[in-house]
Amino acid sequence: MKRTNILRKIVFLGLVGACAALVLGIPVLAQEKAQDPLPSWNMGSAKQAIVSFVRKVTDKSSPAYVPPADRLATFNQNGTLCVEHPLYSQAMFALDRVHELASKHPGWKTEQPFKAVLENDREAMARFTEQDWARIIGATHAGMTTEAFLKIVQDWLAKAKHPRFQRPYTQLVYQPMLELLQYLRANGFKTYIVTGVGQEFVRVYSERVYGVPPELVVGSSIATKYEYQDGKPVLMRLPKVFFIDEKTGKPEGINLFIGKRPLAAFGNSEGDREMLEYTGAGSGTRLMMLVLHDDAKREYAYGPAEGLPDTKVGRFSQALMEEAKKRGWIVISMKSDWNRIFPFGK
Amino acid sequence: MKRTNILRKIVFLGLVGACAALVLGIPVLAQEKAQDPLPSWNMGSAKQAIVSFVRKVTDKSSPAYVPPADRLATFNQNGTLCVEHPLYSQAMFALDRVHELASKHPGWKTEQPFKAVLENDREAMARFTEQDWARIIGATHAGMTTEAFLKIVQDWLAKAKHPRFQRPYTQLVYQPMLELLQYLRANGFKTYIVTGVGQEFVRVYSERVYGVPPELVVGSSIATKYEYQDGKPVLMRLPKVFFIDEKTGKPEGINLFIGKRPLAAFGNSEGDREMLEYTGAGSGTRLMMLVLHDDAKREYAYGPAEGLPDTKVGRFSQALMEEAKKRGWIVISMKSDWNRIFPFGK
Repeated sequence: MKRTNILRKIVFLGLVGACAALVLGIPVLAQEKAQDPLPSWNMGSAKQAIVSFVRKVTDKSSPAYVPPADRLATFNQNGTLCVEHPLYSQAMFALDRVHELASKHPGWKTEQPFKAVLENDREAMARFTEQDWARIIGATHAGMTTEAFLKIVQDWLAKAKHPRFQRPYTQLVYQPMLELLQYLRANGFKTYIVTGVGQEFVRVYSERVYGVPPELVVGSSIATKYEYQDGKPVLMRLPKVFFIDEKTGKPEGINLFIGKRPLAAFGNSEGDREMLEYTGAGSGTRLMMLVLHDDAKREYAYGPAEGLPDTKVGRFSQALMEEAKKRGWIVISMKSDWNRIFPFGK
Repeated sequence: MKRTNILRKIVFLGLVGACAALVLGIPVLAQEKAQDPLPSWNMGSAKQAIVSFVRKVTDKSSPAYVPPADRLATFNQNGTLCVEHPLYSQAMFALDRVHELASKHPGWKTEQPFKAVLENDREAMARFTEQDWARIIGATHAGMTTEAFLKIVQDWLAKAKHPRFQRPYTQLVYQPMLELLQYLRANGFKTYIVTGVGQEFVRVYSERVYGVPPELVVGSSIATKYEYQDGKPVLMRLPKVFFIDEKTGKPEGINLFIGKRPLAAFGNSEGDREMLEYTGAGSGTRLMMLVLHDDAKREYAYGPAEGLPDTKVGRFSQALMEEAKKRGWIVISMKSDWNRIFPFGK
């Protein structure tokens, strides 16, 4: 009898709750779960910060309300939206291109930095300076039209595979961040990619992979030159750096390309520090987040913040961690905050 | 009796026509006129070309159909959307700033090009080289934060008046082009401004005046530098040219900022030639148009194409006219194609 009463009470309270929810417009738990726009995020401070921020800036009755025209969110790409270890996909592309073009450049066999690449000398490559990389980019990313480059990148993406995951690079994107991009867009945000790597490289797949069209990709670039080939105008890619969209270049690039201050910014390394500072310096409610790679099992672990191994690719220093704490930026732990890393279910 | 019969017939046919129109969904003449999205355009080849182009690329059953994501139209600003004579509004702003800043620069009284400006020496100013203008821009557009510059431009726009029309520069925009911008947007186009003048200057008023938000304004720019002032990050404007968005710079800038080829492009001078060529070199149906200033009475008349007076500001040469004819670009005659020039009814 007692048990039946309790069951009845539960059923009754459940019905009352469901009716109240229907009447008051409060979703019941089952609905809430089904409708969760961020299912790959564990409930925790990171997820709560996102949801609370979006509610505040989209609620017309909130003092923090922001009209859609000013809702812009900027995302770093490598390490924030996709895997960046052991090397950025664009760096892998450049190294593959050196091998491919080597027969046309016999001198490369004895000429650095090309010699190291052709000999797969990982130690020497790990010591490459910015100048070395600039030479490699110049030799592999220039001397063709913008249209020809697009085709070269498409072809490479179709066949290249990540050395550890053995999947195309465009699949190694973080499911929680895809959900976040979609959640923000569903709430009237324009989502931009603001990347330190080449913007023309990322523009090839940004729409398909992230739902971000080419015109919302800001990145580093080399100069182009308008000229005529067989009477047809083309843009030739020159071996000359035009803009570096990294560190201070990120807010400079945002101002140059967009002309508005982001309302939210997402990064994962020292290259994103100034973008987050610039975002946070705006008035009203803002959201700044950093992804911490602390999951060697499912992805990678590197810092050196929080005692994680040091790295040259996507470095998250302890100083950056201190700044994050001081300024109220939220650190996303891949290990604790994400119940899923990749769309393919890893 | 006969007249009554004819009247009856007319009334009857009118009713039949109106009913048929209602049933078949064909708008009657009065409705057509009321719904004309381009009322300031006289019926003629220019207007017909616009309407026909928009129908073709938006009709899903047409072989020329283009999905909304690729419907982008680029507009030059000065001389295409607004008055550019006797000088671009930004040049007027720069000259006013020289007067305003003169007390802080006593040396300018004897130093060219500033001396000529301070003495209102129109002959000397007419001979200013690009270097002279670069020095004036450097002295008047740099050395402040991007936010301070925004405020300076806003203040100037609020009080400056055009020497002939005695109205703010932001009112001296072409009503037919405002209708065209709106018509294209209503048909799923993104409308960009691609201007040779400073993009940060135009971004101050582009949304309010043209309905074009700052992020859709591509223009010339000076470099900025990210730094801290009282612990707050700011972008300082440097006296250093970063990008010139004119002539070959227009397609280069379009590729850099947008990464897509325009479907339609609108200009009025030699500075727009390459933008129109680049647009026309794309596949499928494209629309390229040039505004010819042939209306000295209502606005200005300058070419030297078609025997119009020669000019240094917004030059439309006979060679450009020949190229337009050869490539099927449509020339808009302000005099014949526009029944109204300005929103205020001139």
